[in-house]
Amino acid sequence: MSDKVEAAVLVDTRKVEIQQFDLPSPARDALLLKTEVCGVCGTDIHLFEGRMKIPLPVILGHEFSGEVAEIGEEAKTAEATGQRIEKGDRITVVPGSNKFCGKCYYCKFVPSRPNLCTSRRAYGITISCRDPPHLFGGWSEYIYVDPVHFFTFKLPSDFPKEFGALIEPAAVATRALERAVAPGITFGNEGFGLGKSVVVQGVGPIGLLVTAAARAAGAGEIIAIDSIESRLKMSERLGADITIDMLQLSKSEDRISEVRRLTQGVGADVAVECTGVPAAFQEGVEMVRDGGKYVEVGHYTDTGPIEIRPHRICRKDLDILGSWAYPPIQFRTAISFLNREKDRFKFGDLITHRFSVSEATRIFEAVKTRQAVKTAVVP
Amino acid sequence: MSDKVEAAVLVDTRKVEIQQFDLPSPARDALLLKTEVCGVCGTDIHLFEGRMKIPLPVILGHEFSGEVAEIGEEAKTAEATGQRIEKGDRITVVPGSNKFCGKCYYCKFVPSRPNLCTSRRAYGITISCRDPPHLFGGWSEYIYVDPVHFFTFKLPSDFPKEFGALIEPAAVATRALERAVAPGITFGNEGFGLGKSVVVQGVGPIGLLVTAAARAAGAGEIIAIDSIESRLKMSERLGADITIDMLQLSKSEDRISEVRRLTQGVGADVAVECTGVPAAFQEGVEMVRDGGKYVEVGHYTDTGPIEIRPHRICRKDLDILGSWAYPPIQFRTAISFLNREKDRFKFGDLITHRFSVSEATRIFEAVKTRQAVKTAVVP
Amino acid sequence: MSDKVEAAVLVDTRKVEIQQFDLPSPARDALLLKTEVCGVCGTDIHLFEGRMKIPLPVILGHEFSGEVAEIGEEAKTAEATGQRIEKGDRITVVPGSNKFCGKCYYCKFVPSRPNLCTSRRAYGITISCRDPPHLFGGWSEYIYVDPVHFFTFKLPSDFPKEFGALIEPAAVATRALERAVAPGITFGNEGFGLGKSVVVQGVGPIGLLVTAAARAAGAGEIIAIDSIESRLKMSERLGADITIDMLQLSKSEDRISEVRRLTQGVGADVAVECTGVPAAFQEGVEMVRDGGKYVEVGHYTDTGPIEIRPHRICRKDLDILGSWAYPPIQFRTAISFLNREKDRFKFGDLITHRFSVSEATRIFEAVKTRQAVKTAVVP
Amino acid sequence: MSDKVEAAVLVDTRKVEIQQFDLPSPARDALLLKTEVCGVCGTDIHLFEGRMKIPLPVILGHEFSGEVAEIGEEAKTAEATGQRIEKGDRITVVPGSNKFCGKCYYCKFVPSRPNLCTSRRAYGITISCRDPPHLFGGWSEYIYVDPVHFFTFKLPSDFPKEFGALIEPAAVATRALERAVAPGITFGNEGFGLGKSVVVQGVGPIGLLVTAAARAAGAGEIIAIDSIESRLKMSERLGADITIDMLQLSKSEDRISEVRRLTQGVGADVAVECTGVPAAFQEGVEMVRDGGKYVEVGHYTDTGPIEIRPHRICRKDLDILGSWAYPPIQFRTAISFLNREKDRFKFGDLITHRFSVSEATRIFEAVKTRQAVKTAVVP
Repeated sequence: MSDKVEAAVLVDTRKVEIQQFDLPSPARDALLLKTEVCGVCGTDIHLFEGRMKIPLPVILGHEFSGEVAEIGEEAKTAEATGQRIEKGDRITVVPGSNKFCGKCYYCKFVPSRPNLCTSRRAYGITISCRDPPHLFGGWSEYIYVDPVHFFTFKLPSDFPKEFGALIEPAAVATRALERAVAPGITFGNEGFGLGKSVVVQGVGPIGLLVTAAARAAGAGEIIAIDSIESRLKMSERLGADITIDMLQLSKSEDRISEVRRLTQGVGADVAVECTGVPAAFQEGVEMVRDGGKYVEVGHYTDTGPIEIRPHRICRKDLDILGSWAYPPIQFRTAISFLNREKDRFKFGDLITHRFSVSEATRIFEAVKTRQAVKTAVVP
Repeated sequence: MSDKVEAAVLVDTRKVEIQQFDLPSPARDALLLKTEVCGVCGTDIHLFEGRMKIPLPVILGHEFSGEVAEIGEEAKTAEATGQRIEKGDRITVVPGSNKFCGKCYYCKFVPSRPNLCTSRRAYGITISCRDPPHLFGGWSEYIYVDPVHFFTFKLPSDFPKEFGALIEPAAVATRALERAVAPGITFGNEGFGLGKSVVVQGVGPIGLLVTAAARAAGAGEIIAIDSIESRLKMSERLGADITIDMLQLSKSEDRISEVRRLTQGVGADVAVECTGVPAAFQEGVEMVRDGGKYVEVGHYTDTGPIEIRPHRICRKDLDILGSWAYPPIQFRTAISFLNREKDRFKFGDLITHRFSVSEATRIFEAVKTRQAVKTAVVP
Repeated sequence: MSDKVEAAVLVDTRKVEIQQFDLPSPARDALLLKTEVCGVCGTDIHLFEGRMKIPLPVILGHEFSGEVAEIGEEAKTAEATGQRIEKGDRITVVPGSNKFCGKCYYCKFVPSRPNLCTSRRAYGITISCRDPPHLFGGWSEYIYVDPVHFFTFKLPSDFPKEFGALIEPAAVATRALERAVAPGITFGNEGFGLGKSVVVQGVGPIGLLVTAAARAAGAGEIIAIDSIESRLKMSERLGADITIDMLQLSKSEDRISEVRRLTQGVGADVAVECTGVPAAFQEGVEMVRDGGKYVEVGHYTDTGPIEIRPHRICRKDLDILGSWAYPPIQFRTAISFLNREKDRFKFGDLITHRFSVSEATRIFEAVKTRQAVKTAVVP
Repeated sequence: MSDKVEAAVLVDTRKVEIQQFDLPSPARDALLLKTEVCGVCGTDIHLFEGRMKIPLPVILGHEFSGEVAEIGEEAKTAEATGQRIEKGDRITVVPGSNKFCGKCYYCKFVPSRPNLCTSRRAYGITISCRDPPHLFGGWSEYIYVDPVHFFTFKLPSDFPKEFGALIEPAAVATRALERAVAPGITFGNEGFGLGKSVVVQGVGPIGLLVTAAARAAGAGEIIAIDSIESRLKMSERLGADITIDMLQLSKSEDRISEVRRLTQGVGADVAVECTGVPAAFQEGVEMVRDGGKYVEVGHYTDTGPIEIRPHRICRKDLDILGSWAYPPIQFRTAISFLNREKDRFKFGDLITHRFSVSEATRIFEAVKTRQAVKTAVVP
């Protein structure tokens, strides 16, 4: 183990530098992770573009897994899933944790939605690398993990290495889908469940994982919509029955008609907005049947307003369900989902582009083309 | 019983005439109701203004109760609540029924939402009075009721007479509130229930009944918002703890701040849009706390679009819940609610203006001023 | 088409006779079905043993599909799924329908649970064959179907023939599983969903279909329990990860310990009782984790009492959920589930024994040995 | 403030002694409470009788409120409801807290049910008074409170003094009632809500508070059952419409028939078991309508087994819902409920017997007669 660690640091808007940090020795309640893989997320692009205020400099990267390189005595028992972890074990970390809190309104009064904690700190986003031990981001050879403050999950031994970059997006995706679940589904046939039709608007990484999760959870017809053919093709391999190419069906009203035609004339039971484009929201509301469920998970950042007609929401007796991040426990669902379904769905294909840490300065140029599905840093 | 019946007929856009019809004799499976009272609804205004296409001529009025004047042999046993009805009994009728159906997509596949039936026919709206027995609207001395096709409810003997005009709006209001109920409330403290804070935007008849229903169902702080002082005063008598007068707090952002100030800085657990004004939707989304529930029941007609930011719905992990009409069974809830709470809330005060059938041509002029809360036709 | 129809008739307790009936011509609103397959259900055994009072003589059999042999003019449009049906189409029928009703307490006031209708009439159970057109049971060459009163579903063209006997049990099984679904699963991680552990007690036909449905809906660990090795083997092919053989682990407390050991020491998220043995209920309650869900679907008939401790239900904060039959719409779920998963799960293997109509008198002797999984009548 | 504190200590089975302790000075993160009132709970009787293993000696009492006598610097900001507390403020404490935890299976994986935490420590039950600062029970002049580990709630200034003994039971009662709430109630008319009928079995303190909570939450008919006339009379003042006296209707089947007669022949929408008598469980299952909800909150200790028929649970499509304690946030609901409804319901009447700390040795003799409703220690 060299005593220097290379990491990709966002130092200013649109400016990423490769820096060297001293390899820290973990405190008694911490551990040091040798990075296996770390994903590039849409959020990273927003950070790069300066659309969110964060405490620069920051080592980017919040979707990662790694191998325990060193571990403090107390970190072995503080592990979130209850399993003991040792040097050499592979783990992942919920990047934005609220193990700190218990103090904010949401932690005290809305315990079912730990995702709403107002004092979350997130790897690769809201923790600066200015001060030691520095290594709070995944685009780095090593990551400093403090299990007292962050939930850590031990990975199954047969969990494929690069899937480490997919756990966090799969947590976002499965939680979004589960927002559409209604209780005792057949009581009136409400919500997502066995045999229910699902529209996925936008099959980037999140939309593709929503597609696979819906298929894995027994969906009926799944209809994927996008304008990039390679993504639509991939969505078919991940469970979509039908794809709608926006280049071919370029008018919103035609896409709405097509979805209705495919769903007994009424619209889908569930639709999930995964584009981040405001116009998709307007369109998606009309793709859901009356009394159906529409999940909004695509707009992690504010990409602007769109006109809607409140009458339509009233008239359709609609549920519109925002889905923001996930509770930490969602990582358990995500890991189980990816590992159980790995033979059925070639999740590895989602990662189309790879960079080493030292190449990380070129990442944003590459992802701009949107030809990549998922890009990963592989040290 | 005279053999002529006087009724107020919408013959064309903005044109109401008083007409005489022959008093029909009910068929074996029907009954004839002597009207006690019939409400004037916002929908009636939309019909008058020609904003909905209906089979004119139509006797207006769909919020009514009456006394059974004549009853066919088979109508005595077809009654919806299971009680026997006789001549002289007081009943009300779910005006838009789907007892016909069982054939449309929603009746077959979404039995829990009978309100979504696509073949509903509604008294005072979608049944013309052109053909005998003519009397399918409530602004009339008599109403022809066909219990095979419509749900009828026998009224309790101590049910106040004019409350007959409030049952249908109370069904709309209680159903809207119940949209915000989450299961096993304390599992994470979700949704409406004991002690939960509620914002009611707009305290016309629906908003006032939402206010009273929320108080009757154990709400915590109830905040009513309107620009008409007399309505705000009435909302206090019906359970609101705090009122916000839009004339005094004229900026949207100030009203949002005020709601947050009143709710530990986070926003209300639940807000219900009862204004029908698109801008209220935009504002209301910000009045609900993260993870809260926003019910859209005010836009029965399309009064235009409004800009929203999908990011806010995503970020707030919000539930937006459209509420369209009600299942027929909601009338049971509404009747029970009005009758049980009649000593606590002076529901009778809601009816501020009364007209006889022959005066009904003047109704629309009167309601335009918005000084009336609820107007009723009392034959 | 011969003008005589052979059918197996239960004429008295433990007495089945093969009888000949005249082939009826369907009324304008009815159709005649040429039976493809009809299952033998546990209920049939109860009927044979005289444990339920029914209007004998009855042609047994309520799990069937067939080909439309003749069809009345009005039956072509009364079809439940909204598709047109013609002579030659393959259909199935919800055997116990409540299309008649709308009058009982449950149809009026609890529309979400059509399974609770008190006036259901069921093919093969509560409709006598004494009077023409006689053919109201599936152990017959032809079946008389009245789509005005019964829900009919058109089968997909690639739906395997013998699966017709599995639709009704799959409706029972999927509905039982869906009873355990909680809304917005991750809100506190309640109920069945992606990655959740499931215990299936008893893997006869219902338990096997619950197993496959749980796997198809994305379950985590599935643990199957039975005392018949061949059934446990089959459960593994239908999605069980682990089996517990009651012959090897013969004490209840050992099986409970084993389930806890397999589930992080706490018990399964969900357990489903599919045995019909009262002692299983007592045991199953202890196999579910605190706050988990226990579904009781195995006791369609009363096989006696068992001791439970109310304290355990209180202390465990448990949900115990009875599951009685299914709403008619569950057939859509069942058909979609069987057809979509037919390559993954060899559902055909469930049918281990076949009899012609004329051999049907020997069925009850055969099923007594419990070596059969599912027995079918194949005319 | 004397420097000695008098407290009632359970030193052995059936042996309570009055002991003197040194008045402690609170640590920086703790406070000292001058007891206003502390209730006597059924659990105290179980402890006295030796039915639960606890770390004796223990100062009894877990239902209390008090005035802040001294407060450490850090305790002023650690307060659970977010308000600042000062010397002289009145507060209450959730006696069994899990602010410690975050480590057990339930805290990590089932965040919506903090009541299931396996490492809860409870005032008056599981914290011995052997070691300083000793004062961990409510039957004492002073109580030592550690807000870092326990949730504390500031009481409204107009909150009646003796209600402090009712908050904890009201948390139990409201949470039990909320277990019966179904989402979007009118979707099929499921669960507790406006106008729903409720049976309360046993109107001791919990049953009486369930009655009042159901009335406050808009219940329809409430039927209270008990064998003590004074309690039934009190239940009427707290919202019961009808009472069934078990001395007059002494057979279980007659009580079941009576409940059905009062509920359109079907049984109540919801029943809540508040007796702790196993036979009540058997009876209550039959008092709920098919598809209804039965809450088991009465069996906090194991008072033995009872026979049930699993078939009845299956056939009735029933929900049986255990309710164990409450999440800490339920105290907010309880305080709001008691304070808002204090003019409507004379909650103070619930406290029929009072003892000083020095008289506390005589409490168990007094409560044995069951003539007391609620007994309180008032220092």
